Amino acid sequence: MALIVQKYGGSSVADAASIKRVAKRVAEAKRAGHDVVVVVSAMGDTTDELIDLANQVTPLPPQREMDILLTAGERISMSLLAMAIHNLGVDAKSFTGQQAGVITDESYGKARIIDVSPSRIKDTVARGEVAIVAGFQGVNPTTNDVTTLGRGGSDTTAVALAAALKADVCEIYTDVDGVFSADPRIVPTARKLDRISYDEMLEMAASGAKVLVLRCVEYARRYDVPVHVRSSFSTRTGTLVTNEALVTNEEGEQMEQPIIAGVAHDRSEAKITVVGVPDVPGKAARIFEVVAGAGVNIDMIVQNVSAASTGLTDISFTLPATDGAHATSALTEHQPDIGFTALQYDDTIGKLSLIGAGMRSHPGVSARLFSALSEANINIEMISTSEIRISVVTRADSLDDAVRAVHTAFELDSTEDQAVVYGGTGR
Amino acid sequence: MALIVQKYGGSSVADAASIKRVAKRVAEAKRAGHDVVVVVSAMGDTTDELIDLANQVTPLPPQREMDILLTAGERISMSLLAMAIHNLGVDAKSFTGQQAGVITDESYGKARIIDVSPSRIKDTVARGEVAIVAGFQGVNPTTNDVTTLGRGGSDTTAVALAAALKADVCEIYTDVDGVFSADPRIVPTARKLDRISYDEMLEMAASGAKVLVLRCVEYARRYDVPVHVRSSFSTRTGTLVTNEALVTNEEGEQMEQPIIAGVAHDRSEAKITVVGVPDVPGKAARIFEVVAGAGVNIDMIVQNVSAASTGLTDISFTLPATDGAHATSALTEHQPDIGFTALQYDDTIGKLSLIGAGMRSHPGVSARLFSALSEANINIEMISTSEIRISVVTRADSLDDAVRAVHTAFELDSTEDQAVVYGGTGR
Repeated sequence: MALIVQKYGGSSVADAASIKRVAKRVAEAKRAGHDVVVVVSAMGDTTDELIDLANQVTPLPPQREMDILLTAGERISMSLLAMAIHNLGVDAKSFTGQQAGVITDESYGKARIIDVSPSRIKDTVARGEVAIVAGFQGVNPTTNDVTTLGRGGSDTTAVALAAALKADVCEIYTDVDGVFSADPRIVPTARKLDRISYDEMLEMAASGAKVLVLRCVEYARRYDVPVHVRSSFSTRTGTLVTNEALVTNEEGEQMEQPIIAGVAHDRSEAKITVVGVPDVPGKAARIFEVVAGAGVNIDMIVQNVSAASTGLTDISFTLPATDGAHATSALTEHQPDIGFTALQYDDTIGKLSLIGAGMRSHPGVSARLFSALSEANINIEMISTSEIRISVVTRADSLDDAVRAVHTAFELDSTEDQAVVYGGTGR
Repeated sequence: MALIVQKYGGSSVADAASIKRVAKRVAEAKRAGHDVVVVVSAMGDTTDELIDLANQVTPLPPQREMDILLTAGERISMSLLAMAIHNLGVDAKSFTGQQAGVITDESYGKARIIDVSPSRIKDTVARGEVAIVAGFQGVNPTTNDVTTLGRGGSDTTAVALAAALKADVCEIYTDVDGVFSADPRIVPTARKLDRISYDEMLEMAASGAKVLVLRCVEYARRYDVPVHVRSSFSTRTGTLVTNEALVTNEEGEQMEQPIIAGVAHDRSEAKITVVGVPDVPGKAARIFEVVAGAGVNIDMIVQNVSAASTGLTDISFTLPATDGAHATSALTEHQPDIGFTALQYDDTIGKLSLIGAGMRSHPGVSARLFSALSEANINIEMISTSEIRISVVTRADSLDDAVRAVHTAFELDSTEDQAVVYGGTGR
């Protein structure tokens, strides 16, 4: 008998029929003898609909009120799910983030969890009942007001609760079969990964893989919570995100790390080039101070070699395209004191990232990457690396070709019949 | 400067445009120098839609979960209203029933308020902000779970909050201009009442007038909260529900009580006749024990004179038609021990009630009532009275005629141009 935290996203509870399907799944886990705690997101598009209502009322909703509004979404889904489970003869009770003891700071709209004290959840489980917990929300103890955790917040709620309850596993149910070696919409031969380490998953999430948000993986790594990413539409095993040392085979022996876990891609970034910057100490620092001061996070940076004749250089960096207007206006405002000639803005870039813990011990990965891209006639505009990741910026319209070329070059293509992987039938 | 509690019902906040209209009204009261606390219901049909969702999931939703579900409705309307007020440059914060200190018992679905400790509301008002409070909901302090107050619960929240805050007035905004001498849909010449006493309003509410629910008026009477029932679609004065001794004219002199306040009607009752009951002591008591044991409240009772030849009598009583099936099956089950011959069920009855505090000191009211009905050829089937009310049961299809005849006989018809009363223009 295990203690399992299950998390179901909005698409898994989009309507009454879906809620009943999830209820059946929860009841089966309970009847199999497990203790079950369920974290649930708002139904389908509820959150977007509530945001739309707020925008109809005011262009600038106060964030405290926005959080109160949005938390209504999980209140609806959690109580309906508790009812549906109860209807199957299994006792279930629902709890808000506050009732479940999810304590956050006071950053409305993007609050961080600072503590989880799930005494009511423990009591509920101890009584043999299923506890349903609203994802995405917590309480700011200073004012006793509700907060929301921002995008992907329900995953974070699930992992934080699993850590606090010392759960055996945190199952994240989604609409795909797990974590793939690349996005299957771009690479039809992408393989579902059976296991991936926290570090690799972190790099994947930071590089554009959508299946789990970064902070959820960070939380799982910090508290060593095994996360099982799987489909709510099938019963097959998904991907286990776990400690690297625990990547073992079915006989429990530690397996050799595969060199490469996967290829991630990201189309959400843009590139700003600051043209004609005087090549004197402190100018680059000044540029990034201005950008940081505007609250914009930058990703990759390239400084060109300066032309000896002019003493001027160009500095390029990437940033979320949604921050583009913000960053360019901040830089333009400081053009006099920075002293650059012009700004170029380019949102037609793509980023490819190759991720694998095995890179640490296997030289030659970057050479193989660059040669694969070169053979596919794809130009590399920027490069950045971490210990277990290499990222390159390409033209946006070459990105899909680049991902496919790299996926093949590193022998990641599946040899299995993909119809089985995507057909929704068990195996 | 006064402290005003304003309550807006679901039809007043049915969509974003309505919410903005209410926000304007609240902001005007605030700018006029008043302290304002607003109680708000769920938007339009939200509550019905949530109930419908629950019924899609299970035929028997656990009441605790139902209450959690339904309270999402006011969470949405209250935060949107706070945003809309904020957008007009007036600071506003929204609070759940729990945050507003509305403490109830644990009767989920029909909880009773046992205490109101609105410290957060007082602080908010003291800071010069408008406090928006979710109607219809509270918290059961034993378990820290939310509860709902049942039908008309938001009115009760408003009056309870006004009592706890010692507000100068509790304004109940609705879609009619106030309390009328009869339902204007039946009696086009019905007059809007400027004032009515708590006792009369209680009898009106208990006799089928829909404008305020019974428990709200009971609460107002107990704590002596002046209630101003008025339209959210106009600025004209509505009806002040207040202590009888305070019914004064515009110069502040106590006015002579009008004999009759109004005529109420009720189509929601049914009549059960228990035929052939042995006319021996204890049989009537046994019948009403059985009915009460089934959780059914009865209203009027008539026992016929027994026929000397048989020693049998008939007992008729009225009850809410929604409890009809329940009561008849309970009685049928006990037919052997009660020993009656048959049950007759009749849901084609109507009840007319004439209400007026002046009845106490004016004899002849019932004679005038019966003669008016007789002249209109309307048969009276049952009669009951209180100190300030006379009710009669008629055929359902004579009820409208009966209401009109009585309204005219007691000279309640308005002589004003009704277009002014209903036209939506100020006066």
